[in-house]
Amino acid sequence: MTDSIDLNCDLGEGFGRYTMGDDAAMLEIVTSVNVACGFHAGDPDIMAERAAQTLEKGIVLGAHPSFDDLRGFGRRRIRGIPASELRNLIIYQVGALQGLARSVGQKVSHVRAHGALGNMTDEDREMADMLAGAVADLGSDVALMTMAGCAADRAAEALGLKVARQAFADRAYTDDGTLVPRTESGAVLDDAEAAVERVIRLADEGVIESVNGKHLRLDARIVCVHGDTPAAVKMAEHIRTALENRGIAVKPYTQHEGWN
Amino acid sequence: MTDSIDLNCDLGEGFGRYTMGDDAAMLEIVTSVNVACGFHAGDPDIMAERAAQTLEKGIVLGAHPSFDDLRGFGRRRIRGIPASELRNLIIYQVGALQGLARSVGQKVSHVRAHGALGNMTDEDREMADMLAGAVADLGSDVALMTMAGCAADRAAEALGLKVARQAFADRAYTDDGTLVPRTESGAVLDDAEAAVERVIRLADEGVIESVNGKHLRLDARIVCVHGDTPAAVKMAEHIRTALENRGIAVKPYTQHEGWN
Amino acid sequence: MTDSIDLNCDLGEGFGRYTMGDDAAMLEIVTSVNVACGFHAGDPDIMAERAAQTLEKGIVLGAHPSFDDLRGFGRRRIRGIPASELRNLIIYQVGALQGLARSVGQKVSHVRAHGALGNMTDEDREMADMLAGAVADLGSDVALMTMAGCAADRAAEALGLKVARQAFADRAYTDDGTLVPRTESGAVLDDAEAAVERVIRLADEGVIESVNGKHLRLDARIVCVHGDTPAAVKMAEHIRTALENRGIAVKPYTQHEGWN
Amino acid sequence: MTDSIDLNCDLGEGFGRYTMGDDAAMLEIVTSVNVACGFHAGDPDIMAERAAQTLEKGIVLGAHPSFDDLRGFGRRRIRGIPASELRNLIIYQVGALQGLARSVGQKVSHVRAHGALGNMTDEDREMADMLAGAVADLGSDVALMTMAGCAADRAAEALGLKVARQAFADRAYTDDGTLVPRTESGAVLDDAEAAVERVIRLADEGVIESVNGKHLRLDARIVCVHGDTPAAVKMAEHIRTALENRGIAVKPYTQHEGWN
Repeated sequence: MTDSIDLNCDLGEGFGRYTMGDDAAMLEIVTSVNVACGFHAGDPDIMAERAAQTLEKGIVLGAHPSFDDLRGFGRRRIRGIPASELRNLIIYQVGALQGLARSVGQKVSHVRAHGALGNMTDEDREMADMLAGAVADLGSDVALMTMAGCAADRAAEALGLKVARQAFADRAYTDDGTLVPRTESGAVLDDAEAAVERVIRLADEGVIESVNGKHLRLDARIVCVHGDTPAAVKMAEHIRTALENRGIAVKPYTQHEGWN
Repeated sequence: MTDSIDLNCDLGEGFGRYTMGDDAAMLEIVTSVNVACGFHAGDPDIMAERAAQTLEKGIVLGAHPSFDDLRGFGRRRIRGIPASELRNLIIYQVGALQGLARSVGQKVSHVRAHGALGNMTDEDREMADMLAGAVADLGSDVALMTMAGCAADRAAEALGLKVARQAFADRAYTDDGTLVPRTESGAVLDDAEAAVERVIRLADEGVIESVNGKHLRLDARIVCVHGDTPAAVKMAEHIRTALENRGIAVKPYTQHEGWN
Repeated sequence: MTDSIDLNCDLGEGFGRYTMGDDAAMLEIVTSVNVACGFHAGDPDIMAERAAQTLEKGIVLGAHPSFDDLRGFGRRRIRGIPASELRNLIIYQVGALQGLARSVGQKVSHVRAHGALGNMTDEDREMADMLAGAVADLGSDVALMTMAGCAADRAAEALGLKVARQAFADRAYTDDGTLVPRTESGAVLDDAEAAVERVIRLADEGVIESVNGKHLRLDARIVCVHGDTPAAVKMAEHIRTALENRGIAVKPYTQHEGWN
Repeated sequence: MTDSIDLNCDLGEGFGRYTMGDDAAMLEIVTSVNVACGFHAGDPDIMAERAAQTLEKGIVLGAHPSFDDLRGFGRRRIRGIPASELRNLIIYQVGALQGLARSVGQKVSHVRAHGALGNMTDEDREMADMLAGAVADLGSDVALMTMAGCAADRAAEALGLKVARQAFADRAYTDDGTLVPRTESGAVLDDAEAAVERVIRLADEGVIESVNGKHLRLDARIVCVHGDTPAAVKMAEHIRTALENRGIAVKPYTQHEGWN
């Protein structure tokens, strides 16, 4: 089905003296990244460094904005924020990363909402419209990265945005194409071989299987991997190697055929 | 000496439900503003709104970055932050405002460091070089706003930056051209008439008198006024009226003759 | 029905250089207060000062903990925090105020949850049990202040806590005894006379009327008033005067007959 | 000179999903700890858990307050905060830990200032008097833990506080008994054997050698060790074993002869 896959991961999720995951290892594996913008993780120094590193390595840089929730790592659903304020929250964070990226000659190519903000904009059309509107206001050179087939995908299409569609290598899917919540057992796949198989099948057939065995047809050539544990890094390496062995090019989505 | 003066003030220094000063009144008086970027004050909503308002009123928008010190309103000197980290701190904040400004069709024309960061970069050449370097990295369309004659002024000149030089209508000067610290009595002028006289003299002769009566020659056509109290707003109005009555145009520094 | 009423209000909701409401005026009117603990508002200096002022004036001091949400003034419902973590969040804040209170010879007599945390613990029994458990863990000398008849009231009773039951002078009630949400029109009573009448009737008959005219029977001798606007302060004064004119003593709930 | 040593370390310096050091390992080695209180590190959950763990293991619990500086891990010197505000900042943090400790049946036995606040109160008598005053206001059951011989030690004595005097196993000393700053090379001893020797000598002779070979006479039976790296944990284990092999009891300072 496709001859090229983008391996994507969240990056820059340390804070001050705190580290999270193995960014150095992931920068050798992935072809696009979503960098935390200081609200759930990340800080100006990490952001500036990741911008410079991605430029040097030819990795596509994206922003990973979230609720203002350092304590909860952006995984808490915060209710009652008007859409106009969420828009400003997102643009603030993306703008901060754009500033640091420009200052080292790099640019921000996409926005991927993090954690609870990501889940809510994936699931709920009103939230999705808010997110798509924010990205639209950032200008035509910024794409919206979403889960393939989710509400944000549709909202982005409705506004004529560039959409970078993502599937998850190591997260279980429900029958309607959303992720099984982290609070449920089996939400995260630990088996590297199973994850590799899933990615190969996605590349070959455009299909991911849900927890109930349903075939989900996904238009996704971006595969999200994780790097927060040594096992996760290993899994990402396996996936990259398996794809290359099969003759599938691992390269940034911006270089995929048909990306505009 | 000059036929045009820019009236400038800090703006957008509320936070969440908290307000600070009378922004609405000041937007009717001044011709350029420095908007807080969320670290000592300000938040994404206030920033977005001020960006839209300044665009509508033809007011020049600047960023007002500071130390990360909401509790201390950015007035505490924080030691031990490497220059590279201060640079990133500044670009993060300016980038955030740039993002919000662009999203409403406005742009950020200058950077004015706030509070303790402003004082330290005004006084100390190493800090000044850091600030000027950060502004240089923001690109050639962003000017550095500084106190005329201070270390940051010299640092900006050394890097070939556009420099927007400012004098204070209501702050006392020492003999060497720095501000009398707020902790000392007489640091802030309460007398509106004295402030008006000072501004007129600056416009006519390019001179401000220090606390000891020394004539400080200042190349400043931007006059900083305040709006945090009703008396401060009144003083700003007086100054504007007095300038106009004397035939001195009150307009943004970007429209002054010789500004490039 | 009762010959004594406690007038209670939230206090100390400024932050750093920001002010909120007229604390000085309210300290002349009320007999018990709920002081913000730094998470939605308040800071160590304000807390220490309010502790000292309440001691001096014979006002009963309570803690007003909330979600960690300075930006949203604690009015945003934050989901996904485990009960054990909410308990710790509450005890942290109450402990901080207890420390400052003890340091000036004052003590914390009750806990009243703020904003969204207050609403959620008023409405939801699981949240209410969490709150009551936290207060129980603070020791037997700390009461739980709640809306009379709400889930937190029942949870506190179930644990054998001292319960300080509150009614609102200026907020509309639904038929089932909860507050009409602030987002709905008519949620806040602006008419001082109506508020006075309501309080008098509550004192005389133990009844408050809902928005639909239903008679809600409330066991509440604590009346919550507000001080965030000049009109609110005026209303509080009116209520105090009206109660005293009617021979109803306005004094701390800890001095009411039957309080143990 | 002494037959008992307290091994002390900083603990609970994670935050949210972030971890710092190996707390579980250190809880098997040390006899007293200083737990972060949420301002430079730590959060209510970590604080509550450490309070319960220390109670279970018979470890003495202390509070480790700092400047409000999560981003800089409390290592930045923040100037311009009045002494009265620093006092409130400290009592707020200690109070929060006291609340959580009491809620699990544990108590806070001492206060040890962290990072820049620790350095400034160790060095500067005015700052030391502020700290000692804050601890005095916490009540007579709370000791002040300080570097032996520093300004805070003298300030605590002047106020008649209980003083828990500490020496550092792995930090180099200047000739006047202060620590060599972390920014200088050689500030931290990496050699476990050298650290062990230093501690043995301190126990035997009451002497630590400065970087220039000067014999510093220190009245310290509390030895501070670190657990932020695997090597540091190993060093702490070595020190404990070496002391026990020499017949020196490793036990909380509160059980040392002469402690009152």
